[in-house]
Amino acid sequence: MSKGRSKSVGVVKTKYFEIPQLELESGKKLSKVRIAYETYGRPNRDKTNAILICHALSGDAHAAGRHRVNSRKSGWYDIAIGPGKTIDTKRYFVISSNVLGGCGGSTGPSSINPKAGRPYGMGFPEITIGDMVCAQKKLTDHLGIKRLFAVIGGSMGGMQALKWSIDYPDSVKNTLVLASGAKQHPLGIVFHHLGRQAITRDPSWNRGRYKDQPRGGLSLARQISHITYLSEDTLARKFGRRPIGGRRNSGVFGFDFDVQAYFDYKGKSFARRFDANSYLYITSAIDRFDLTEGGKKELSEVFGDVKSKFQLISFKSDWLYTPEHMQELYSGLAEAGVRCSYRMLDLPYGHDSFLVYNNTLGNVMTRYLDRHWMSESKG
Amino acid sequence: MSKGRSKSVGVVKTKYFEIPQLELESGKKLSKVRIAYETYGRPNRDKTNAILICHALSGDAHAAGRHRVNSRKSGWYDIAIGPGKTIDTKRYFVISSNVLGGCGGSTGPSSINPKAGRPYGMGFPEITIGDMVCAQKKLTDHLGIKRLFAVIGGSMGGMQALKWSIDYPDSVKNTLVLASGAKQHPLGIVFHHLGRQAITRDPSWNRGRYKDQPRGGLSLARQISHITYLSEDTLARKFGRRPIGGRRNSGVFGFDFDVQAYFDYKGKSFARRFDANSYLYITSAIDRFDLTEGGKKELSEVFGDVKSKFQLISFKSDWLYTPEHMQELYSGLAEAGVRCSYRMLDLPYGHDSFLVYNNTLGNVMTRYLDRHWMSESKG
Repeated sequence: MSKGRSKSVGVVKTKYFEIPQLELESGKKLSKVRIAYETYGRPNRDKTNAILICHALSGDAHAAGRHRVNSRKSGWYDIAIGPGKTIDTKRYFVISSNVLGGCGGSTGPSSINPKAGRPYGMGFPEITIGDMVCAQKKLTDHLGIKRLFAVIGGSMGGMQALKWSIDYPDSVKNTLVLASGAKQHPLGIVFHHLGRQAITRDPSWNRGRYKDQPRGGLSLARQISHITYLSEDTLARKFGRRPIGGRRNSGVFGFDFDVQAYFDYKGKSFARRFDANSYLYITSAIDRFDLTEGGKKELSEVFGDVKSKFQLISFKSDWLYTPEHMQELYSGLAEAGVRCSYRMLDLPYGHDSFLVYNNTLGNVMTRYLDRHWMSESKG
Repeated sequence: MSKGRSKSVGVVKTKYFEIPQLELESGKKLSKVRIAYETYGRPNRDKTNAILICHALSGDAHAAGRHRVNSRKSGWYDIAIGPGKTIDTKRYFVISSNVLGGCGGSTGPSSINPKAGRPYGMGFPEITIGDMVCAQKKLTDHLGIKRLFAVIGGSMGGMQALKWSIDYPDSVKNTLVLASGAKQHPLGIVFHHLGRQAITRDPSWNRGRYKDQPRGGLSLARQISHITYLSEDTLARKFGRRPIGGRRNSGVFGFDFDVQAYFDYKGKSFARRFDANSYLYITSAIDRFDLTEGGKKELSEVFGDVKSKFQLISFKSDWLYTPEHMQELYSGLAEAGVRCSYRMLDLPYGHDSFLVYNNTLGNVMTRYLDRHWMSESKG
């Protein structure tokens, strides 16, 4: 991020790995679980240079580079991953996988249930952030990684990073958590609840059995989420009350303002690439995420056996995962005696700040990684 | 609000007033416009003690008292209107009417179009906040009020109050604007845009021609709005992550948390009492509200001929109509040389703070009204 976005990892290919049987936190078992993943850079001799990138709700395995030479679309974190970039592929071996329950090549509700010969749909078992991480652990085992130099994630990716540090304390040296928290707070639950309603109220959702996506509902669900990713400042700067250009698609339920057309575009493009049932399952997993297990555990206890060091980053303009949420996490880590640094960055882009190209964030991450890589090499 | 909620105006009845023809800002004309209204207290000899209360998006004419002796439900601003209350009916003659375009007895899209013999539906003309105010002016003329002692409104009601002071400068002595602004900002536009989609995507909406309300869509629209009325603090205090009591209506699209059931209840009860088309028309009127007319006018110019004095009140926890929005309004009024007082109150209830029983707000309003009533009586 801080070192220019011109260099890319080039053309990359999604690979697949199969887990014969995965036991879920619920006790249920999933057979023939496929995990889609990509890697950038090369492992060093001792395989001590691996960094796992965990994606957020709408992400996938394709974090960097392009799938075709002339493709316009690059991976979702291409601003940060590449030669000379914050997550420098000349130094690190970067792994990125699509989460369990997703629709970017990994097994999820749209996958064929091997026992039934048709998509799981609502027959897919409930999954948790811990289950996603468990599948990732099988992948890193498969790749021969004993210990990750770092796990990095924002939003839901940050929840995965936290679970890694707790569930596999010997397998993570550094955990970077961005725009996330120790649990999903009620505001986030409500927005997901609204989005799930938008999907399940669409008649073409058909209780999860559809051939074509329930695009109307899925588009609305995405728009309901998207508003939480932006700051009021971003909306004011990018759109304000600018009237819609061109033909006015008006009437009381039409578009008056550019900002409406923008949300419409965001919703429609998401509905073309995402699976509605995956949206239901993944948002539910996020909503159930709570390291304190409903207040039964103190965070200091939860982090009691953690061996990783931490870098926490929140954004002042993020009203979905607020600095207060990160502060709660920071206090828990500090109380547990975990080595942890916390930065609240005054970026104006809202929750999406972790995905926006900017030097402020890039520098914090680069410095943290550089410092710990150097001390690693010396030690 | 500040003087106890025990005393009520008692049993009240909604009355109706007909405007033979109303010319709208668009130039279109509406015939036989009915306005539902209620009054509390009595006019004094010179009719100088009238206060007009303007309701917000989901309100109606029934602002105080009860419709039946044993009714559990009292008017939407009963906490503030009554003998000895903030808007003291022993002193003031209080008028409250349902807005044009509404569904609480005033003419709106669910009314019968006299020319067609069936409901207007989407054939209802587009309306503005100014049109609502114009209809109110006809009502106060009808009641023989030359000049209102005060116009009071929160949220959309505040927009109406502002228009009163501008469009009828000789008819308003005091304007009290709560949790509102000089224009609808993009965040509010987006939330309404999402809500309108929820309605129009519901197949039973049927392009506005329905016998039964499109309840699913209307309920979702209300929930999408409701989230903007609350603060994160309110959600955390009232619900947090408390699991849903009783039978768990779960699955990935079910309810895990009490906060989900609360939103479900809020949505459903709204859908039983509100008209979907009214929701479309009224939210559009709010979204189009912009005293600067797209930046063509300075606020200081807009308020140039205003004769009213102002009390502005915003709430620190209101993220829909933020203190910054009110500050923008305040600056415009100050620059125009209008006598204006502005208070930003640190109440935790979010946008809904103006509707929540509390002494902080009650005292500010009571003091303003008392002071100006006293100086009035002396003068």
